[in-house]
Amino acid sequence: MLATPIDILPLTGEAFAPFGDILEIAGEPSFQINRGMCDRFHDVATLDFVGPGARSNISFARSRPYALPLTLDMVERHPLGSQAFIPLSAEPFLVVVAADEDGRPQQPLAFVTAPGQGVNYHRGVWHGVLTPLGQDADFVIVDRAGDGNNLEEFYFDRPYVVGPDMRSN
Amino acid sequence: MLATPIDILPLTGEAFAPFGDILEIAGEPSFQINRGMCDRFHDVATLDFVGPGARSNISFARSRPYALPLTLDMVERHPLGSQAFIPLSAEPFLVVVAADEDGRPQQPLAFVTAPGQGVNYHRGVWHGVLTPLGQDADFVIVDRAGDGNNLEEFYFDRPYVVGPDMRSN
Repeated sequence: MLATPIDILPLTGEAFAPFGDILEIAGEPSFQINRGMCDRFHDVATLDFVGPGARSNISFARSRPYALPLTLDMVERHPLGSQAFIPLSAEPFLVVVAADEDGRPQQPLAFVTAPGQGVNYHRGVWHGVLTPLGQDADFVIVDRAGDGNNLEEFYFDRPYVVGPDMRSN
Repeated sequence: MLATPIDILPLTGEAFAPFGDILEIAGEPSFQINRGMCDRFHDVATLDFVGPGARSNISFARSRPYALPLTLDMVERHPLGSQAFIPLSAEPFLVVVAADEDGRPQQPLAFVTAPGQGVNYHRGVWHGVLTPLGQDADFVIVDRAGDGNNLEEFYFDRPYVVGPDMRSN
């Protein structure tokens, strides 16, 4: 049984908007602080933490890299909270998301970040696991802590194969 | 009227504990995720957002650098929320904090970060503004949004002079 191929697209706000926010320093700052010494790009993510004892938390992730093409057999979602990943290095990472229909993820979309881009998955959005490309990579995570079951995993009957990277074609 | 000098010390958890959290990837991870591909350093900051409409938000800051020795004439605090700064480059920044006594900041302490270290100022802790050293620097900020007055500034009658950096002496 052949795996369905998924092309990788550049991460842009328009394509990603149904799934989350792109977190990056871009465009004009929201305002200046500290007597003009600092530009603030304000409130760039829709943080959304619900359920019993919900609170935001900051964590770090240090992930081993993945190779392309990548076999994608699972996506997950967090019904009780958004989840933001901000890279601490300029290496790209893969961003896989899928629309939901009746509680099931549809065919995934795959994006690759530009240097400095992070993402915030909106609450309940199906997404792939953290997938740096090339080398070990560190990330800041801002997501939900609290009680309740905040993880759903969905295993595809037939896996997808993500890649190659369309940027270089 | 002479300014009081303040030495700069390395940022360590023991010295900084009364004021906030040091945010860094250090020691053993809290647990692994993603089938062992990723180490998670979990819930590293005490986020504390109170008052009307309080919610967490993610912002970015791009700050011009400051030179040492630095004249310190003001500290500020946020009565309604903690405030975290995580550097996106390895350049050091200056961390100034002060204990409170009866609503007034006492003599400040000054620290300089090691590469990769960020800080989370606990709610209500007097601190200096974001102060990168050496060159322009970008930061992730996780702090409070919402209604109410979340800023108090205190101007010293007599400024302090921070520096030089004691690490190199």
